[in-house]
Amino acid sequence: MVVSTPETPARSGRRAGPSTTRDDIRRAARELFASGGFDKTTMRAVATRAGVDVALVPYYFGNKRGLFLAAMELPIDPAELVAAAARGPREGLGLRLATGFLTTWDSPESGPALQGFLRSAVVDDYAARAFGEFTSRTMLPLIAAEAGISEDTARVLSSMLFGVATMRYVLAAPAFTRASTQEMIDVYGPRVQAVIDAD
Amino acid sequence: MVVSTPETPARSGRRAGPSTTRDDIRRAARELFASGGFDKTTMRAVATRAGVDVALVPYYFGNKRGLFLAAMELPIDPAELVAAAARGPREGLGLRLATGFLTTWDSPESGPALQGFLRSAVVDDYAARAFGEFTSRTMLPLIAAEAGISEDTARVLSSMLFGVATMRYVLAAPAFTRASTQEMIDVYGPRVQAVIDAD
Repeated sequence: MVVSTPETPARSGRRAGPSTTRDDIRRAARELFASGGFDKTTMRAVATRAGVDVALVPYYFGNKRGLFLAAMELPIDPAELVAAAARGPREGLGLRLATGFLTTWDSPESGPALQGFLRSAVVDDYAARAFGEFTSRTMLPLIAAEAGISEDTARVLSSMLFGVATMRYVLAAPAFTRASTQEMIDVYGPRVQAVIDAD
Repeated sequence: MVVSTPETPARSGRRAGPSTTRDDIRRAARELFASGGFDKTTMRAVATRAGVDVALVPYYFGNKRGLFLAAMELPIDPAELVAAAARGPREGLGLRLATGFLTTWDSPESGPALQGFLRSAVVDDYAARAFGEFTSRTMLPLIAAEAGISEDTARVLSSMLFGVATMRYVLAAPAFTRASTQEMIDVYGPRVQAVIDAD
């Protein structure tokens, strides 16, 4: 047991603070998403496991999607990325989506965390299930709504960009790694647009 | 040690036969592809490791691509699938590609082996490297040539279909598993065609 003194703040003291409550919720969420998947995990169950009032979960994380993003330590919200790309004329949407996606994945700030998440999502059975459910239940409908496209098109675009990310960052296939960010954008931008135009 | 009698054929006896030579080469190839990747593994090195004459490798497997497919126990040759889809009018190529791809992956005969391969390709670092190099060096140029499309478009299409396969068979994302083969074909066919038409 850690004794509380001015020089060494007690763990039990820190755990009572608000930032530790947030961490407790996040830890509980990660455990429950991993063991039960995304669909079956409720915000109430996460609150119970963390030993906090149920109102604190939406207070800190907004909704289950926000809780998942925080639990998985994702540095960006894919829906915000899509919402940002959706602003502007529709004929440039494909290029803006490809640019937003590839620059975020290639950036030194957010890239490593995203790539680490993707690796665990494809390698680990539990993470895979939670990520697959998360994508299906919340991301695809949200992407469709934000971008003004059908869910079928959102599904095709997400598999396309997920495929690029896996080829470039997990398999490190030379055809996908030897190209610069800009070259990838030049290749994918018009083709993402073609899929949007076929909607 | 197994003693050779008419009732129990000796292992050493079987190893001298042609079908065992084939297996020896395949085993040696699998080990070398796993440790050295696709690019650096030569047919000569595989022959040396298997202890066979170098001429026997092309005799049994044609070329390095055929050797890789056999070593990885892939039940189909993706290039043949593309070549078959390429026959017919170009405006139906997207639908034929999506149909060939999805029926093969969903079939009870070839599906399980493909899905097992994909899983190991994304999970295992060594398999990932060999598969990524294999795709980059031999599959993309071949797909481009067979389908009459640019390598950039072949790259986009392969990431699109690889993304579907990973979502459907590795992550088992509900948005990709709850659809039947035909529904998937209906969603992907026109959108694969849109990417081809943008070429």
